[in-house]
Amino acid sequence: MPLSSDQQAEIDALRSETRQTLRATVPGMEAHLYKAYPVLDHGFVRVVDYMGDDAAICQAARVSYGKGTKSVQNDEGLIRYLMRHWHSTPFEMCELKLHVKLPVFVARQWIRHRTANVNEYSARYSILDREFYIPAPENLAAQSVVNNQGRGQALTGEEAARVLEYLKADSTRAYDHYAEMISDEGQQGLARELARMNLPANVYTQWYWKVDLHNLLHFLRLRADTHAQYEIRVYAEEICKLVADWVPFAYKAFEDYRLGAVTMSAQMVDCLRRMIAGEEVTEENCGMSKREWREFMGVVG
Amino acid sequence: MPLSSDQQAEIDALRSETRQTLRATVPGMEAHLYKAYPVLDHGFVRVVDYMGDDAAICQAARVSYGKGTKSVQNDEGLIRYLMRHWHSTPFEMCELKLHVKLPVFVARQWIRHRTANVNEYSARYSILDREFYIPAPENLAAQSVVNNQGRGQALTGEEAARVLEYLKADSTRAYDHYAEMISDEGQQGLARELARMNLPANVYTQWYWKVDLHNLLHFLRLRADTHAQYEIRVYAEEICKLVADWVPFAYKAFEDYRLGAVTMSAQMVDCLRRMIAGEEVTEENCGMSKREWREFMGVVG
Amino acid sequence: MPLSSDQQAEIDALRSETRQTLRATVPGMEAHLYKAYPVLDHGFVRVVDYMGDDAAICQAARVSYGKGTKSVQNDEGLIRYLMRHWHSTPFEMCELKLHVKLPVFVARQWIRHRTANVNEYSARYSILDREFYIPAPENLAAQSVVNNQGRGQALTGEEAARVLEYLKADSTRAYDHYAEMISDEGQQGLARELARMNLPANVYTQWYWKVDLHNLLHFLRLRADTHAQYEIRVYAEEICKLVADWVPFAYKAFEDYRLGAVTMSAQMVDCLRRMIAGEEVTEENCGMSKREWREFMGVVG
Amino acid sequence: MPLSSDQQAEIDALRSETRQTLRATVPGMEAHLYKAYPVLDHGFVRVVDYMGDDAAICQAARVSYGKGTKSVQNDEGLIRYLMRHWHSTPFEMCELKLHVKLPVFVARQWIRHRTANVNEYSARYSILDREFYIPAPENLAAQSVVNNQGRGQALTGEEAARVLEYLKADSTRAYDHYAEMISDEGQQGLARELARMNLPANVYTQWYWKVDLHNLLHFLRLRADTHAQYEIRVYAEEICKLVADWVPFAYKAFEDYRLGAVTMSAQMVDCLRRMIAGEEVTEENCGMSKREWREFMGVVG
Repeated sequence: MPLSSDQQAEIDALRSETRQTLRATVPGMEAHLYKAYPVLDHGFVRVVDYMGDDAAICQAARVSYGKGTKSVQNDEGLIRYLMRHWHSTPFEMCELKLHVKLPVFVARQWIRHRTANVNEYSARYSILDREFYIPAPENLAAQSVVNNQGRGQALTGEEAARVLEYLKADSTRAYDHYAEMISDEGQQGLARELARMNLPANVYTQWYWKVDLHNLLHFLRLRADTHAQYEIRVYAEEICKLVADWVPFAYKAFEDYRLGAVTMSAQMVDCLRRMIAGEEVTEENCGMSKREWREFMGVVG
Repeated sequence: MPLSSDQQAEIDALRSETRQTLRATVPGMEAHLYKAYPVLDHGFVRVVDYMGDDAAICQAARVSYGKGTKSVQNDEGLIRYLMRHWHSTPFEMCELKLHVKLPVFVARQWIRHRTANVNEYSARYSILDREFYIPAPENLAAQSVVNNQGRGQALTGEEAARVLEYLKADSTRAYDHYAEMISDEGQQGLARELARMNLPANVYTQWYWKVDLHNLLHFLRLRADTHAQYEIRVYAEEICKLVADWVPFAYKAFEDYRLGAVTMSAQMVDCLRRMIAGEEVTEENCGMSKREWREFMGVVG
Repeated sequence: MPLSSDQQAEIDALRSETRQTLRATVPGMEAHLYKAYPVLDHGFVRVVDYMGDDAAICQAARVSYGKGTKSVQNDEGLIRYLMRHWHSTPFEMCELKLHVKLPVFVARQWIRHRTANVNEYSARYSILDREFYIPAPENLAAQSVVNNQGRGQALTGEEAARVLEYLKADSTRAYDHYAEMISDEGQQGLARELARMNLPANVYTQWYWKVDLHNLLHFLRLRADTHAQYEIRVYAEEICKLVADWVPFAYKAFEDYRLGAVTMSAQMVDCLRRMIAGEEVTEENCGMSKREWREFMGVVG
Repeated sequence: MPLSSDQQAEIDALRSETRQTLRATVPGMEAHLYKAYPVLDHGFVRVVDYMGDDAAICQAARVSYGKGTKSVQNDEGLIRYLMRHWHSTPFEMCELKLHVKLPVFVARQWIRHRTANVNEYSARYSILDREFYIPAPENLAAQSVVNNQGRGQALTGEEAARVLEYLKADSTRAYDHYAEMISDEGQQGLARELARMNLPANVYTQWYWKVDLHNLLHFLRLRADTHAQYEIRVYAEEICKLVADWVPFAYKAFEDYRLGAVTMSAQMVDCLRRMIAGEEVTEENCGMSKREWREFMGVVG
């Protein structure tokens, strides 16, 4: 349970106060506001604010004085056209602000997406909580034997037990020492900015993360992908659900033209044409590397 | 008068519909929403949307679960501290979306601020309006004789009259030819993406411009400055008024620590100390170039 | 001929001086350095500096101490893998600096690519040259009747002649008045920052433009595309030639996986599988919009 | 000693091969190329490539065809003017590429500077080395009692000994378990992307970091500052030395107008004027908060 009762009370207070506004609002997103959706064992994602809706994308694309197009149907058609033809700027006109709690090793991947605004909890100034990510047994994966960057089957038996024991014991001991080092009882107390270096990368941190819809979708395309590390993918999948409720037309277009889409190389397109024309195309006569042929077969085979 | 009655009707429609929201709202900003504030002879600035308020800056700085600090006084103190010590990320947590109508030569300066989102009215796709910036007589300035990049006194008499005549006649003729070239009556009609090249840089364009508060304040510091070209400065000044109503604590801190602040070089600080200690510091013994000494005297003299 | 003899002399001086360096160099790029390659009637592109080569991409991808991989063959394989799997950061490790002369309406499209460094010739400070883009007759295209944003066949006969006459006469008159307004002979002289507003968008400007290889390839993908406006496409095509000589492996991968590649939507991939399995897929049973079906047929038909 | 003999051999190989180039070169920087300058106990900074020199800043500011200004003296004057008046784009025309080895907790601060290109050593793909930052005794600082974000005097005696013992023992144990978990001898072996989470934040990582001079100077202003954490400041100071040899005019201007400069608030400037006019200004009549008055006195007192 990631929230203390104080934190839950603060969230409840915010959700109890309704205000009047002239701005675009999205009922589906208002229902999510401030709530903490759990991710991993101690993490969460929660929407702190949002700007714009599907109509705002059209409004900006048309540089119009009022709302987007006259009819909802036109809005959807325009949004699909913009997505298909890589018009990115209208999608930048929507903005999302999230509060995320996540393990440090996930945060280190996440922060590589530079076009976003971030305020992270400062371990120079404040004391981190005693919370560490310990994988569920089914996520305790072995190194992949086919992909240097991936993972294979879950570990089992004694090996799994030993790994879990190491992760738990090392986290606990590291935090005990962290707490002891910064304590000022009967001693000076080590500077927090130094003591934090003893904590392992599965310790939880948290941040406010604000991003426009175009860059958010780019993040989701890479991080909700099956090749992404499981521990960041679960965050991306949770955010996908929020976006689907916030800008449903844009999200559907994103599913069709990005998430579910496939980019074919010049060689692949050539093979496709030959296959559709009835020619038998094989690994030998395809003009691709072994690896590309395998990827190609994975799509059309 | 920059708005057609259709456009005004669209704005009125948006202002007539109030919605419920759980998000942070700012009554002072709600009062501005959608209204077009005139700038120059045909331009305007209007707020299309905003995200956050003063409390949101504190909330992000503290990575808190609820609102910012408990008391309004603490919020102001924290905001002033953040501004004074160049903490930029909490200010990035507020976002503003404007619709701006402006001459092309102003747009060309404005767009150099890269950290913003822009959707400009497309003259490849649409037809530009017959609207050109013609300076008021008091703004028809001569080239400065002391600063290669500035302007001096207003032109007068025949010279002023001739300049105005050129600007008006050339704009009119250019637009007549533009309209004639793209017309498809009795001819094919030149492609819009080509015909636009005949229009001078005082023609009006418009765009949606979205920016976070940190980058907006940076824009305002440079463009509301007395060294900025008058025609962009008037836009910056209009936006300053909106920001003052939106995030009053942040804006006051911006006035004190940026707009009204002065950066002193290492040499200037050294001279200051000597002067305060009672020493007579002169252009000869100050260790600065002539130009720097003049700038220094402009501040403390 | 875009260069004055003074300018050519400066270029010749730079090309005559060889220096020693330990940095990565590319003979194919050294041959291009400083030369001005003509584009349109008065424009050009010239390489002012470059950083890195194909090996530098691999070196960064591996965070290695020395050069990239041991063998040239491995370098190419790695680069193709990185391009295919959207690893962008190693390509950001190469940088190109260009000096470009281009019409203002082309510059206005170009500048929308924000992730680049730009220094433009200042018309607040300096006087622009009397040089305007006047399209060659074969590029004097009509508005497209099928695509609101494109162009159709070239204009002919009287209409073409009239358009050319307008473009030439209006440019000439605008520049005459510009020159007369800023003149300080017998008058004060209008400020340059104001006088420039009388010049049409086909006047030439110039800038230094510096960009990393990843963002450059993104620019080239959009601007060397057949849907890009002809007047910017010719610049992109000229730059493509330079990049092909600078980082040949990366450029070849870019051709295969970007320029010549096709992104298929989820619906298109589904149709492909059905077609390859022998099913007859038609506009009626394909599950796409008319427009998407037409685009799909354009690829595989 | 941070480099293995293999790594040193690779560096030596690169330093032994001189090439011919027409590009701008800087002898002072060529002398640094590829060498690893030690920072902290296992870290280093080394220059992998650079683009431009002082003249390139002027060349871009003037959008010139050849080198910068005719005389070296003019170059320096122009560079100082550009720095003093916050013209940032000419400084963006120089670029630096570094290879840096640094503890993870330093990397996490460093990466917050978003306008840079980064390739980090991948612990999903590769195995991290057994190298941890252990502070020298004089840097084992206590938490500051006046500044929540800073550090005070060095710890001494038993407390210091205990802290060092914890840091060393926990690092060693964490790495032992990391190595044991990923081992595939007699077991499957945990995925590297998971095992890395057991390593504490003082483990060393490394990356290629590429940045333009404007953003580099911004980084140095914040990180070479006395308020920056010691462990990142030593990196900034090492880089300052490299920049001073690379672009000496720009670096000197940076020292005078940024590093050694002071920004005075509107209230401070007002007090200054009163003090210079002979008035006695005190904390009571200064119109500043206690904290600001203390900062002000720190500058002029």
